[in-house]
Amino acid sequence: MAVFTSVSEAELTVWLNNYSLGQLLELQGIASGIENTNYFVTTSNGRFVLTLFEILNADELPFYLNLMAHLARHGIPCPNPVANRANQYLGTLKDKPAGIVSRLGGKSATSPTNAQCAAIGAMLGQTHIAGQSFSQIMPNPRGAAWRATTASLVRAFLNAEQLALLDSEVALHARQNFSPLPQGVIHADLFRDNVLMEDDRVGGLIDFYFACSDALLYDVAITVNDWCMNPDGTLDETKTQSFLRAYDAVRPLLASERDAWPLMLRLAALRFWLSRLYDQHLPRDGELIHAHDPRHFERILKNHIAAPQAVWL
Amino acid sequence: MAVFTSVSEAELTVWLNNYSLGQLLELQGIASGIENTNYFVTTSNGRFVLTLFEILNADELPFYLNLMAHLARHGIPCPNPVANRANQYLGTLKDKPAGIVSRLGGKSATSPTNAQCAAIGAMLGQTHIAGQSFSQIMPNPRGAAWRATTASLVRAFLNAEQLALLDSEVALHARQNFSPLPQGVIHADLFRDNVLMEDDRVGGLIDFYFACSDALLYDVAITVNDWCMNPDGTLDETKTQSFLRAYDAVRPLLASERDAWPLMLRLAALRFWLSRLYDQHLPRDGELIHAHDPRHFERILKNHIAAPQAVWL
Repeated sequence: MAVFTSVSEAELTVWLNNYSLGQLLELQGIASGIENTNYFVTTSNGRFVLTLFEILNADELPFYLNLMAHLARHGIPCPNPVANRANQYLGTLKDKPAGIVSRLGGKSATSPTNAQCAAIGAMLGQTHIAGQSFSQIMPNPRGAAWRATTASLVRAFLNAEQLALLDSEVALHARQNFSPLPQGVIHADLFRDNVLMEDDRVGGLIDFYFACSDALLYDVAITVNDWCMNPDGTLDETKTQSFLRAYDAVRPLLASERDAWPLMLRLAALRFWLSRLYDQHLPRDGELIHAHDPRHFERILKNHIAAPQAVWL
Repeated sequence: MAVFTSVSEAELTVWLNNYSLGQLLELQGIASGIENTNYFVTTSNGRFVLTLFEILNADELPFYLNLMAHLARHGIPCPNPVANRANQYLGTLKDKPAGIVSRLGGKSATSPTNAQCAAIGAMLGQTHIAGQSFSQIMPNPRGAAWRATTASLVRAFLNAEQLALLDSEVALHARQNFSPLPQGVIHADLFRDNVLMEDDRVGGLIDFYFACSDALLYDVAITVNDWCMNPDGTLDETKTQSFLRAYDAVRPLLASERDAWPLMLRLAALRFWLSRLYDQHLPRDGELIHAHDPRHFERILKNHIAAPQAVWL
């Protein structure tokens, strides 16, 4: 349930006086999402999504809102923040930082086709290119330091085999330096449920609140690890090829990125194994029901180690 | 016909490599419009309009593109310019300044209802408020100096009665000073054919290439003179009331603006009488077929003089 702070039509009507969005026609809470309060808002000007930020620091919000505005300005279908009369994206509603963004069409693809994998691959490439002219920097809050800290917190919940895997992977990636690879702003969480599809077309990329500055290839690996994955935790070769060819056609991968690909897939799997272990064993209040099974990414990680993947193009 | 410069799919495909808009799916010339070349462009990212600027000075284009971007950023449904990889709205195609903007839904209302007059009145009020935080200034190129010059050029084509009307009105408005009234950025040409309606909802405001900085009430008068006009050149009282009440609910009119209303309606009528006289008698090449009958605004002007309008609220 994702309405942590309830907003009445009367309260929103008053708040919308700060905007040029016309008359409020409909207000409807959104059930999905685990961090923020979200409402669908329809006004005489169109369809929007209202977000009350429950957890994120107000200092960090401009990065995400400016990034979405930047990408939308480049024609990437992502939520476009609406500025208020003071020309600001960020306001305050019910004592919470709050913003309103355009609402996009489409729905998540649970079993993506090859064509859909190609579409999201191409869109990720376009997003990376559009992001090159975005000037703000956000160091990845789930980088090496976070991995080390999180690993130390979840150790107590692991068996010996898992511990050995975790320790060796955390140590391996602590020694890696991917900074020579092309860097930029990345979505960092472009799972199927954060993409709205209209058939084979990407209707919208949503939920940019893990976006940060990192290696572009890391974003590719995170996305492929979800979109092109078989239920057994191995990559579907055809889907992966469709994805990577489409991405490469928009932003050609460098030789150095092809070399880094097997390790990057492992790093991407490790990151989500860690966060899911953490969410399962050390849940915040009320978050438990949303915890995903960490074993999914444990399997993926083991498979990536057992059979290192080449870049299929 | 509004394709003065033809663009092939192959040429556009190359040009779109400067953008993050995905793959070109469809390209279709737009027949309407008299100043620029316009194409509907569909890419894998969505629906857009490509414009090659045939007449406007490239120095002036950033004002219009930045204004549309500013209003869209505030949730006003207007064409949203797309930035290229260099983060610029304005590019060059076929040696012409060119830009690509989002495409809006809806169609023009030829016989607007009271509800539609209210919808556009409210939207104009919102646009004026959103424009208050736009920082660029564009003096009205069709102000007093233009009126005097244009009047001198069309005199030769008028009869004695028309001449007397023209001279007295130009002289009257040369003495007026509306600068104490609320000022801001105005559309200045928000006729029915520049608004896309979706039933009673404003789907889009288009064609901002007459936008400038002037009295907000002038924009109201220009718009009312088109949307709320009877065929005989008198205002429809119910439509005018619907429009003004909706506008006033968004941006309350000052007493000074109510006082200025009868003269502002005359000024707005004079401006279009003059430009239509000019277009009829001194057409540019190829423009003749688009010339509107100047007598329409001559009648409106005479009616406004004969029966000065109060603000109906």
